[in-house]
Amino acid sequence: MPSHLIVLAAGQGSRMMSDLPKVLHRVGHAPLFVHALRAGAALDPDRRVLVAGVGAEAVRAEAAEHDEGLSVVLQEEQLGTAHAVAQAREALKDATGDVFILYGDTPFIRPETLSMMAAARTGGAAVVVLGFEAADPGRYGRLVVEGGDLTRIVEYKDATEAERAITLCNSGVICADAEVLFDLIDAVGNDNASGEFYLTDIVGIARDRGLRCAAVTCDESETMGINTRAELARGEAIFQARRRAEALEDGVTLTAPDTVFFAYDTHLGRDALIEPHVVFGPDVTVESGATIRAFSHLEGCHVGARAVVGPYARLRPGAELGNDSKVGNFVEIKSAEIGEGAKVNHLTYIGDATVGEGANIGAGTVTCNYDGVFKHRTEIGARAFIGSSTMLVAPIRVGAEAMTGSGSVITSDVPDGALALGRARQVVKEGLARKLMTKLRSAKSKRTN
Amino acid sequence: MPSHLIVLAAGQGSRMMSDLPKVLHRVGHAPLFVHALRAGAALDPDRRVLVAGVGAEAVRAEAAEHDEGLSVVLQEEQLGTAHAVAQAREALKDATGDVFILYGDTPFIRPETLSMMAAARTGGAAVVVLGFEAADPGRYGRLVVEGGDLTRIVEYKDATEAERAITLCNSGVICADAEVLFDLIDAVGNDNASGEFYLTDIVGIARDRGLRCAAVTCDESETMGINTRAELARGEAIFQARRRAEALEDGVTLTAPDTVFFAYDTHLGRDALIEPHVVFGPDVTVESGATIRAFSHLEGCHVGARAVVGPYARLRPGAELGNDSKVGNFVEIKSAEIGEGAKVNHLTYIGDATVGEGANIGAGTVTCNYDGVFKHRTEIGARAFIGSSTMLVAPIRVGAEAMTGSGSVITSDVPDGALALGRARQVVKEGLARKLMTKLRSAKSKRTN
Amino acid sequence: MPSHLIVLAAGQGSRMMSDLPKVLHRVGHAPLFVHALRAGAALDPDRRVLVAGVGAEAVRAEAAEHDEGLSVVLQEEQLGTAHAVAQAREALKDATGDVFILYGDTPFIRPETLSMMAAARTGGAAVVVLGFEAADPGRYGRLVVEGGDLTRIVEYKDATEAERAITLCNSGVICADAEVLFDLIDAVGNDNASGEFYLTDIVGIARDRGLRCAAVTCDESETMGINTRAELARGEAIFQARRRAEALEDGVTLTAPDTVFFAYDTHLGRDALIEPHVVFGPDVTVESGATIRAFSHLEGCHVGARAVVGPYARLRPGAELGNDSKVGNFVEIKSAEIGEGAKVNHLTYIGDATVGEGANIGAGTVTCNYDGVFKHRTEIGARAFIGSSTMLVAPIRVGAEAMTGSGSVITSDVPDGALALGRARQVVKEGLARKLMTKLRSAKSKRTN
Repeated sequence: MPSHLIVLAAGQGSRMMSDLPKVLHRVGHAPLFVHALRAGAALDPDRRVLVAGVGAEAVRAEAAEHDEGLSVVLQEEQLGTAHAVAQAREALKDATGDVFILYGDTPFIRPETLSMMAAARTGGAAVVVLGFEAADPGRYGRLVVEGGDLTRIVEYKDATEAERAITLCNSGVICADAEVLFDLIDAVGNDNASGEFYLTDIVGIARDRGLRCAAVTCDESETMGINTRAELARGEAIFQARRRAEALEDGVTLTAPDTVFFAYDTHLGRDALIEPHVVFGPDVTVESGATIRAFSHLEGCHVGARAVVGPYARLRPGAELGNDSKVGNFVEIKSAEIGEGAKVNHLTYIGDATVGEGANIGAGTVTCNYDGVFKHRTEIGARAFIGSSTMLVAPIRVGAEAMTGSGSVITSDVPDGALALGRARQVVKEGLARKLMTKLRSAKSKRTN
Repeated sequence: MPSHLIVLAAGQGSRMMSDLPKVLHRVGHAPLFVHALRAGAALDPDRRVLVAGVGAEAVRAEAAEHDEGLSVVLQEEQLGTAHAVAQAREALKDATGDVFILYGDTPFIRPETLSMMAAARTGGAAVVVLGFEAADPGRYGRLVVEGGDLTRIVEYKDATEAERAITLCNSGVICADAEVLFDLIDAVGNDNASGEFYLTDIVGIARDRGLRCAAVTCDESETMGINTRAELARGEAIFQARRRAEALEDGVTLTAPDTVFFAYDTHLGRDALIEPHVVFGPDVTVESGATIRAFSHLEGCHVGARAVVGPYARLRPGAELGNDSKVGNFVEIKSAEIGEGAKVNHLTYIGDATVGEGANIGAGTVTCNYDGVFKHRTEIGARAFIGSSTMLVAPIRVGAEAMTGSGSVITSDVPDGALALGRARQVVKEGLARKLMTKLRSAKSKRTN
Repeated sequence: MPSHLIVLAAGQGSRMMSDLPKVLHRVGHAPLFVHALRAGAALDPDRRVLVAGVGAEAVRAEAAEHDEGLSVVLQEEQLGTAHAVAQAREALKDATGDVFILYGDTPFIRPETLSMMAAARTGGAAVVVLGFEAADPGRYGRLVVEGGDLTRIVEYKDATEAERAITLCNSGVICADAEVLFDLIDAVGNDNASGEFYLTDIVGIARDRGLRCAAVTCDESETMGINTRAELARGEAIFQARRRAEALEDGVTLTAPDTVFFAYDTHLGRDALIEPHVVFGPDVTVESGATIRAFSHLEGCHVGARAVVGPYARLRPGAELGNDSKVGNFVEIKSAEIGEGAKVNHLTYIGDATVGEGANIGAGTVTCNYDGVFKHRTEIGARAFIGSSTMLVAPIRVGAEAMTGSGSVITSDVPDGALALGRARQVVKEGLARKLMTKLRSAKSKRTN
């Protein structure tokens, strides 16, 4: 049966105290709504609809980056969850199968939970509501289950004492038959205290029409919504704890898991070793046996097997480190391939470049890739030896097994096996340092007196 | 009614195992006694007296840095808390109103608590003692409250079973009528096991003279005293937890709050984003929408709106970053203004300088500001383009829209729109690198054999 | 009575999901088995035997690094703990006194616990078994103690209800009389479900021969075994917590203990101040009053009294910092002595060098110590002043009180008090920067159109 996804992401989230729409705040480097999309992705959903509202343009832009096939529809006014779902009507026209309704600010629903909801649909329920056993049910709505069927959802304020004793609470997540969903939505009214159209009303309506409803239960932690910065930080902590545990199970050593931060898509190979205080931005793969030393920061990069990175290495997008290569302290690599076994040990910027296998880059080297308007490329051949503080003014090519002298500014290509120098002759002025210092110190003592 | 403050800060704190007087150990980058002063500052106290003893000179020096109007008086011998307070007599001569007596090693009293004490004074009590409901009262002194009045403070060892059952314990913090305090102090004796003059004795003395005393209750956490390095670390953790929570409430994103360290006076604007592993030293302001990336270290600086700092940026005192400016990895900025939209992206030291708006500073640039004796200034004009590894030998001025070639040493001013170069011509010696390496390798193999 | 040590370290540890033998995984920078050896070292053991199996060669290599007097014996097949101990027979031939049997994957046994076991031996027991009061005894074997003697060890599955009620569980650690141990081992059979020879069987055998056995109790935390990466991370956390507490007790300030990582052999002097986010690798000593600022990384180095290191300082093996010296941000020091009061403040690599007292090294300086094959040394004299971005091409000597101009490449020695320059003359081309940028921008706008 085909699946479809609606993610409600229209709210401002005023408790975030932010100019940014709530669903664009990030956990694990992905906007909150992307986590809902990713949970839903396990169902291989056919049509995917995001209902945006506040900050819709910014949401649309982010959505396009994460899922090109996602339809973003606009809810102009926020008139309630049923009204929000109604905006997806056109996008889901003539759809059959299951429609899952998720929330852009609820990032922790597990794919397994959605599969259980799909199974309940297969079991004959037109509407499946996700509930959770609340440790402290408080003022949550309660799911009333009778004879295996969900018979109604009762708001706390309308609940009897007996109903308030129920601990199965409403998460708001729903899976409904695509062929009846919008009919049910049409029947929802807003004759209530807040004047909003509530999605949960479709359960009562479905029952009235003789359709079966069911409840599925998940762990309370999955239903955590993000409404404040403190909850965002707590959400990030939950996300990180999950990812750290997964990495450990996969045979990665994390010396100090609590100090390592993952992105939603970080991939670490078996026997990778991650020292304390490491940050992974999006799109990082570290191959088996590689070591990421302390205080390293990686984004958009690939680290080959047995490579050693850091401490204090910054790998930026487009950094591709070959097997057994080494990138050391205070080194920045951007849009550059570092060949197998090559070494960039210290205080260096390599950008828009190719470094051949076995090459050695001296401390203080800079690829001068930017002329103020354009970026240009640097090519360094295999086994080349770049002397300390060499300026490589791109576009430039240093050949295989070539060398550059320390402190040289290299502006024209260096053939294979050649030595290039660009350096003034050293001049020594005997006694002059002492004279200068004496003069300066005497000037100082005059100033002070 | 005027308020006055006495902070007792004379003890050595031998359990700290330190050569430094206890009250000079720091929490949130402020000496412990400064936290007591800051809590008291909410009362807008007229006269402020610090009673120093061990390490008084060092304490005096720090005190002057934090509060110029603070009188530091010396308690030559440590004969007890009443004796310590007595040293403030001259400084509080003819004072009227409230005298608050706080402790230099008790940094967490809240201003609200002191206001409650002031209110109790207004209610007619000559002496107000701060108590706390102890989770484990143990051997603390107990406050006996009868008919709304504090009738006495009883030491644990002198307490009856009934008194030991009291859970309201003595914090030592007192607010007293300035016009009677020193009379009461004069009546305190030292006829007790340790031979010390105890401040708490003034309650009994006041009662004997027909003066009313009252107790005010605060949370136990406020009364935490610092006596060991472990307690200092715990105190720091409490301080940080408070500041992190405040930042989140103010609409700041802290991706990983537990890895971010604040100073007592850190100011972060709404929608500032602080990545993991960031350290704030004293006197930092970050404007709205700015991003502080991982592994950054800021002290004494101002970061403009929407500026992006780090990762691995070090901003030192006097760094002023304009709106939309960018300071990247392995960059140190000291006593320098970075203009609006200017970029200092990598591996650079900018000290004692002005960088114009929209200027771009290449990797490896250094402002050579120090000649061994004096510091000199560098001025870089708007939209200037400083090539990689340019040495700017100060005092120096590079004009607006000027450029410098990579690897240049700039020793004289560069006019607006000019290009300055200081670079040796590149020489290429064909085949020489191969020859050199062959020779070196053969030398090595000889050594090894 | 002489002591001897057997450490069982033959297992693969398949739950580690690793190519590395389990006992080579590290806690506090020491392989797991080294922690057992270090606990045993307090007994000053005469003969020390490591029973290796999986990955024996790698284990042997590491063992040699940590304890030259350690015999490594091979257990070719893993047939049980008694069989493993039997491999030590030759190495312990004719030994008298106590033989302690520890486990290579159980790093937290305290020396005090082993001393208690030795005392029990002195008290007349031929075999002493270490037990622990388990919070949740679960399926651990139980120690049955009757009349002060250990009468038997009963496996959970063979235990009666009464025996299962016992909470004193078997840790597996044993101390036995060297003169009877191998006789007892010889009598162990493998007639059990898994067909293995169990060391614990020696208790029953000893009793049958009329020898007394005893149990000694330790804290459960000491018996923690490492079987998975998650347990390895937990073990590291326990180790770090112990070391942090010790440092605080010794009078060290750790601003944020949870962010500081120690090695097994880190030594910190009284009144050392360690800021947040600091990592210590092996073999580091920091003298009294020194400050290690945030984001610093130290290995194999010595930091003199009152020296200030970091933030972002990387000290590598062989770095020796004199008293009152200063190593600042983005500086790497390797195999180099930094003289008393010398300053290396920023963006510098000092390797294979001596820096004289009071010398000042400018930003961007590099000791060019590597020619592609050999490493060479740099000597910098007392009070020398090295200008920014000086390349010191080793072998090289800069004399006392000498100076180098910024941006110089120094290839020949500089006498005391002399000034050395190696720098091209600055050329200024009026208006050229504007012309170039205009041309580049017009090229760009053409490309875009």
